[in-house]
Amino acid sequence: MADGEFDLIRRHFSRPAPSGVLGVGDDCALLPMRPGAMAISTDLLVEGRHFFSDVDPVALGHKSLAVNLSDLAAMGAEPAGFVLGLALPRIDHDFLAGFAKGLYALADRHACPLIGGDTTRGQDGLVISITIFGTVAPAQALRRDGARPDDDIWVSGCLGDADIALRLLLGGTSATGLPGPGLFAPDVDRAALLAATRRALEWPEPRVALGQALRGVACAALDISDGLLQDLGHVLTASGVGARVEADAVPVSPAVAALPAALRRLAALSGGDVYELCFTAAPGDRAQVLAAAAALGVPVTRIGQITAAPGLRLVDASGAPLDLPPHGGYDHFA
Amino acid sequence: MADGEFDLIRRHFSRPAPSGVLGVGDDCALLPMRPGAMAISTDLLVEGRHFFSDVDPVALGHKSLAVNLSDLAAMGAEPAGFVLGLALPRIDHDFLAGFAKGLYALADRHACPLIGGDTTRGQDGLVISITIFGTVAPAQALRRDGARPDDDIWVSGCLGDADIALRLLLGGTSATGLPGPGLFAPDVDRAALLAATRRALEWPEPRVALGQALRGVACAALDISDGLLQDLGHVLTASGVGARVEADAVPVSPAVAALPAALRRLAALSGGDVYELCFTAAPGDRAQVLAAAAALGVPVTRIGQITAAPGLRLVDASGAPLDLPPHGGYDHFA
Repeated sequence: MADGEFDLIRRHFSRPAPSGVLGVGDDCALLPMRPGAMAISTDLLVEGRHFFSDVDPVALGHKSLAVNLSDLAAMGAEPAGFVLGLALPRIDHDFLAGFAKGLYALADRHACPLIGGDTTRGQDGLVISITIFGTVAPAQALRRDGARPDDDIWVSGCLGDADIALRLLLGGTSATGLPGPGLFAPDVDRAALLAATRRALEWPEPRVALGQALRGVACAALDISDGLLQDLGHVLTASGVGARVEADAVPVSPAVAALPAALRRLAALSGGDVYELCFTAAPGDRAQVLAAAAALGVPVTRIGQITAAPGLRLVDASGAPLDLPPHGGYDHFA
Repeated sequence: MADGEFDLIRRHFSRPAPSGVLGVGDDCALLPMRPGAMAISTDLLVEGRHFFSDVDPVALGHKSLAVNLSDLAAMGAEPAGFVLGLALPRIDHDFLAGFAKGLYALADRHACPLIGGDTTRGQDGLVISITIFGTVAPAQALRRDGARPDDDIWVSGCLGDADIALRLLLGGTSATGLPGPGLFAPDVDRAALLAATRRALEWPEPRVALGQALRGVACAALDISDGLLQDLGHVLTASGVGARVEADAVPVSPAVAALPAALRRLAALSGGDVYELCFTAAPGDRAQVLAAAAALGVPVTRIGQITAAPGLRLVDASGAPLDLPPHGGYDHFA
């Protein structure tokens, strides 16, 4: 039977499932159970909102899965597989081939097979839906509600690059707030700055191995998708604690470090789309955290402490209080 | 932090998760493992394609979950939970409250909790993404590739109502092919016919209990979402067999039975959006099939046999061959 939907799946998304897994082509996929709990996360990406219409499809395939792997990383879970839903405004085989290439390349690196999906004609704008599955022992899962007073607050990698790249691509504005004109000094080489920061926006690397290495060490963790201050706020609320964060201790790339302080802090503290981990751990476990990260070649940086007093206080290197920059993060309904 | 997305989730979709399940509000949901395999299915529903813009939101909430539960039913799996993604063109709290009401009512009846989700502003047209999880012993899963020559072919319930209702709502045409004018005789009381058939379209009841009861009895099974002939075709292809189907043995409601034969057969054989089960079982297991169905109060009907010869042959009550009606089913890319 000629069947566009089936042809589409067969052509781009029907690699054989791994042994023991029933994949694409039945009513359900079947994933063998492993000991522990199933960690599950789902994300929708909408054209014009989460990605540009002219995005490189290979990068889009990569990032669509990366943001979901990042959720597994933030729980300390081991990837097991994912399902993909696509609402396509049109059939563009070149686009789909590129998308599948980026998606499968990252899936292969994390042994996280595509095990099912649904494709349909959508309305205006591509919608990508991924639901991902991982396994973790419930007692070892890195939750948001485990932060304790005096814990160190850590972040992996560098923050702010993706926000700067997004601002440049949007012509000087960004989702995090400040308007465009004057945001970048007139003498800034925008092309060079975009070249230095764009990879963080389009090719984020989920910290899957770090999340697993932090099981039994970190007290609380999440990934920074909406911006450090907003996401850390979720940990504070869930854990019933507060935090003191040293603004200029937040690690940034050389390109972001060279920006004026106000813009640098805004990007590092409020910029979303980061997919680094923010986690807390007891001060006595510093050596263990550093060793785990060093073994993986992932930089981690202490940026502050959890406090018993509620609220989030931002300070400079001398300990003097700073106003919080706008940090609504990326509110999908702002 | 004021956060539209979080407010939206809190307001409509944050019932507490069942004991042992970490639900909405962390990076991932955590679902305890049970023995067996995890059966997973994902579906996208797009406004204007899978449902009308003026649909009753309570019915839409029901149906969104029903089509996914139907996939679990077709595998013989026991529901364990689901995640929900919504790309919303606007925030309409009345709509969301109705949607949540229909969704939760069906979820409660099947002990299938909402354990996570993602909401975002979409472009034109609501997109609903549901991924559902169930458990089943792999050896007992009702797959598509298990049909054997001489198996009886069975269907549950009645077929065709949803297709007739859709044709009427579309003004006489339908996704399955034939154009409108003349499709219904001029003297047909369209309002009465719609009233008699509409519930099947908008409030399908997934055959979850039947699917579980058929484990160990049925050889192959799937749910009829794209139309009997197209879906049965998937079983035949996957199993490497053929089938002989007696057109007028396919069970229909009194309203559909009263229609002219060509339209009745078209609706029953090619009409999609049905969510009844089609399954095969050895002739020696007829009594067992009937007893299992009777215990659940679900009608089941034998409509033909699996054949070693490939292909799908349609016959009338006398065994004379009939042409297959158009049966592309609902191809989302036709």
